[in-house]
Amino acid sequence: MNLLKQTVGKIKDLDGEMMAKARQRVDNLIKPPNSLGKLESLAIQLSGITGELFPAIDQKAIIVMAADHGVYEEGVTSNPQEVTFAQTLNIAKGITGVGTIAKVSNAKIVTVDVGVKVDIPTDAGVINRKIRRGTANFTKGPAMTKEEAIQSLEVGIEIANAEIQNGVNLLGTGEMGISNTTPSTAILSVLAGCDPKEITGRGAGLGHGGLARKIEVIRNAIATNQPDSTDAIDILAKVGGLEIGGMAGVMLAAAANRVPVVVDGYISTASALIATTIEPKVKDYLITSHATDEPGGKKASELLGKEPMLKMDMCLGEGSGAALAFPIIDAACSMMKNMPTFEEVGMEI
Amino acid sequence: MNLLKQTVGKIKDLDGEMMAKARQRVDNLIKPPNSLGKLESLAIQLSGITGELFPAIDQKAIIVMAADHGVYEEGVTSNPQEVTFAQTLNIAKGITGVGTIAKVSNAKIVTVDVGVKVDIPTDAGVINRKIRRGTANFTKGPAMTKEEAIQSLEVGIEIANAEIQNGVNLLGTGEMGISNTTPSTAILSVLAGCDPKEITGRGAGLGHGGLARKIEVIRNAIATNQPDSTDAIDILAKVGGLEIGGMAGVMLAAAANRVPVVVDGYISTASALIATTIEPKVKDYLITSHATDEPGGKKASELLGKEPMLKMDMCLGEGSGAALAFPIIDAACSMMKNMPTFEEVGMEI
Repeated sequence: MNLLKQTVGKIKDLDGEMMAKARQRVDNLIKPPNSLGKLESLAIQLSGITGELFPAIDQKAIIVMAADHGVYEEGVTSNPQEVTFAQTLNIAKGITGVGTIAKVSNAKIVTVDVGVKVDIPTDAGVINRKIRRGTANFTKGPAMTKEEAIQSLEVGIEIANAEIQNGVNLLGTGEMGISNTTPSTAILSVLAGCDPKEITGRGAGLGHGGLARKIEVIRNAIATNQPDSTDAIDILAKVGGLEIGGMAGVMLAAAANRVPVVVDGYISTASALIATTIEPKVKDYLITSHATDEPGGKKASELLGKEPMLKMDMCLGEGSGAALAFPIIDAACSMMKNMPTFEEVGMEI
Repeated sequence: MNLLKQTVGKIKDLDGEMMAKARQRVDNLIKPPNSLGKLESLAIQLSGITGELFPAIDQKAIIVMAADHGVYEEGVTSNPQEVTFAQTLNIAKGITGVGTIAKVSNAKIVTVDVGVKVDIPTDAGVINRKIRRGTANFTKGPAMTKEEAIQSLEVGIEIANAEIQNGVNLLGTGEMGISNTTPSTAILSVLAGCDPKEITGRGAGLGHGGLARKIEVIRNAIATNQPDSTDAIDILAKVGGLEIGGMAGVMLAAAANRVPVVVDGYISTASALIATTIEPKVKDYLITSHATDEPGGKKASELLGKEPMLKMDMCLGEGSGAALAFPIIDAACSMMKNMPTFEEVGMEI
């Protein structure tokens, strides 16, 4: 709890003075005002985060949190639970969606076991921070204890802190956890105050007919646990997941260290909502990447108040959308660094 | 006309057999089916274009066509016409939007004067293929002759052919031409059979009140010239632009040489509609990049039948959106090359 408290305490507002300077420069670059749209607001945000007019992003990492879910036994997915274990190993090898996309921007993948049911071999390149062997089935009681929820946040903080200390200056979040659209939708339902039916989708795989069941499971979970919609840790403990907490921790640490962090799709956005409920200032440090195909994705983006940049019809997770957005952040930095102002090239506006 | 005819004659269907193989592989990669959305369809399209299961994209170029417009004198923009000249020089220096974004994916910028009003210094790094000093004011008669329209297409073909011969295996289109949302909207109005009012926007700069004037100008141009909506060269000559023809030529040459070509925003999409009206098969070789903020952009994408991948609120042109999409194409290739199938990793599906 100390680490969480210290981290949250370190989160400050963006550097408003530097943002004003950045905005001034962006408005005078050799292009019509606002013509580079989100690339411009991204550049200004990066200046506000880093306190640099010309932020240099040269060490990127995606932190992938892996964990299992007790709610799996309710039949909320058609994928076998063992996939979490198998795919976590593949993620660490860099051969899955996130790894192959991350190669394009030379981003490193950091894979963390924060609660996979099965033991992961020590030589698999996966950092072992297992809190428990998957959450409990939250239709029957809380997914985890409050202490475990805090621990999951603190694992995320520690992993992100270590990467930042090693020089990483752009983070992305990713996850692996069979069934994890179910807790994400539960979190979103609680925070948005809406019926799960409005936002529940098929996730990575769910046969027809299963959707009604999944909605019922989420309704039950909320009815059974009665999470307090103003208390993110309560929500996380009762209807969340260990990897969801881990990613929220990464976001808190990024904000505390003034490092931008790219939010992947649906599950990552649920984490972002947990992190911003803990500390609303975190939002300023987040960059959203792609619009997920999950029906709740739009609601989640609205709640977060951030529009995604990519529309790729992707729903893989793992941090694949965050990885795909990294070159856009490079482009914003390149615009800032390499484009002169009208004055600098001697053109009249 | 010979070069145009030869080029169009060389455009064939995509390699259906290779696409089937690619689809088969994509469906068996270690991810849920379709979970990488447009990245998957992109990989399959690239295989169909190149005839390779693992296409290698390692030499990228954006061809930027620059020209002026006689319709400028009708007051359709608040930007001075001299900006075409000044900005063309800056584009060739690599310091504008397209150049600074293209750095991220190591793409080369090829700048071509296909009709700038002013002479461009020979040492400016701009290829001189000036057909005429800007088009004529198309509210008073055709923008150019039919021969000049064909010439503009052939300039685009020659420039693209030369780049492809030098090893370029991914092309993008871009443009510079003050007033060129006006001819683009005229082309779109003719091809969509709609009133310009439905689709006319403010382009890169147009004061309030100017919009009604711009709509009137486009209506007049169409009424005066009566372009034949089934004859792309007639449309291009009567209400088009030299850079619009040049980019359409680039697309025709790319298709003829089986090289993928990324379409930038609004003006490039107008070129794409010219190219696909000349030869509908061209469409299969096009990759759309970003959704422009111009109101006609949506209509143009619908008419082309291709949904953009990026939603960046950009409206700069120059090929800036195409450049921003290049890393996404790299990601599709990386997915194909570096992600194994379930069988290859010994996982049961």
